[in-house]
Amino acid sequence: MNTMKTALSLLVLYVTVYSAIAKYIPKTGRRVPQTLSRGWGDQLIWAQTYEEGLYWSRSRNKPLMVLFHLEDCPHSQAFKKVFADDDKIQKILDEDFIVLNLMYETTDKHLSPDGQYVPRILFVDPSMTVRADINGRYGNRLYAYETGDTPQLLGNLQKAKKLLKSEL
Amino acid sequence: MNTMKTALSLLVLYVTVYSAIAKYIPKTGRRVPQTLSRGWGDQLIWAQTYEEGLYWSRSRNKPLMVLFHLEDCPHSQAFKKVFADDDKIQKILDEDFIVLNLMYETTDKHLSPDGQYVPRILFVDPSMTVRADINGRYGNRLYAYETGDTPQLLGNLQKAKKLLKSEL
Repeated sequence: MNTMKTALSLLVLYVTVYSAIAKYIPKTGRRVPQTLSRGWGDQLIWAQTYEEGLYWSRSRNKPLMVLFHLEDCPHSQAFKKVFADDDKIQKILDEDFIVLNLMYETTDKHLSPDGQYVPRILFVDPSMTVRADINGRYGNRLYAYETGDTPQLLGNLQKAKKLLKSEL
Repeated sequence: MNTMKTALSLLVLYVTVYSAIAKYIPKTGRRVPQTLSRGWGDQLIWAQTYEEGLYWSRSRNKPLMVLFHLEDCPHSQAFKKVFADDDKIQKILDEDFIVLNLMYETTDKHLSPDGQYVPRILFVDPSMTVRADINGRYGNRLYAYETGDTPQLLGNLQKAKKLLKSEL
């Protein structure tokens, strides 16, 4: 009986303390915090902004991959799945690249050499040169990739990995 | 015996399929994905970049709060705790503001009127005017806040909530 009472007291204490430290919860209910990966590779360390990506790229002497996408674009969503599930792509990105995914365009026009479509992938050298020479398979959207294009992307990652002559 | 065999077959199938779809894991071990909140309020919907924050601010006619911080700055970390645990601050931010936290400076000098120290909080009106008139308690670092300054911050949030005459 005493044990029962103690257990009950502990439970009441637990609930009281828990309520006291409970954090803000929106009226519409608890939300799942958004990750920086946005599903493009949960094990990669994503830069948050272009400025941050450029800083890491220069300081670690690794090329930067900038990926533009939209949550309500079916092409982006389909490509995201093959991209995130491709172990070779994820491994080379993790080991040899600085990665950034963006849903909003930056003010830098060098990142949209032929328009602001999505999904679109640009590479930037540590010397801060946008590698406009590294492109996909579509003449009218040079930096677009579709679900069948992971071999092309892997080839481009190998190409981008060989840095231009660094100006640093 | 047959049931046992079936169960075993199913287990083997499960393990095989699971291994086949297992995603990339870094050599250094599995990582916890970084959230956009970075601990400043997991229930808030954080913008990723300044461009994104400005877009949301204009389109929803809500002021933007830009918070600069660093993971290895003890002042930032101490202030983060009181900031994230303050229900009033979290509630007003969730309901009436667009929020952005950054660890790297933007190229916009209007966001560092008196220097690039952290932690530092600036407000931007939907008309894209930086509200340099809304500041904290320190004359030498006008936009700095310390752990005891949550009442001051709450007052500033109330002030920023009253929008300037919109130019839109």
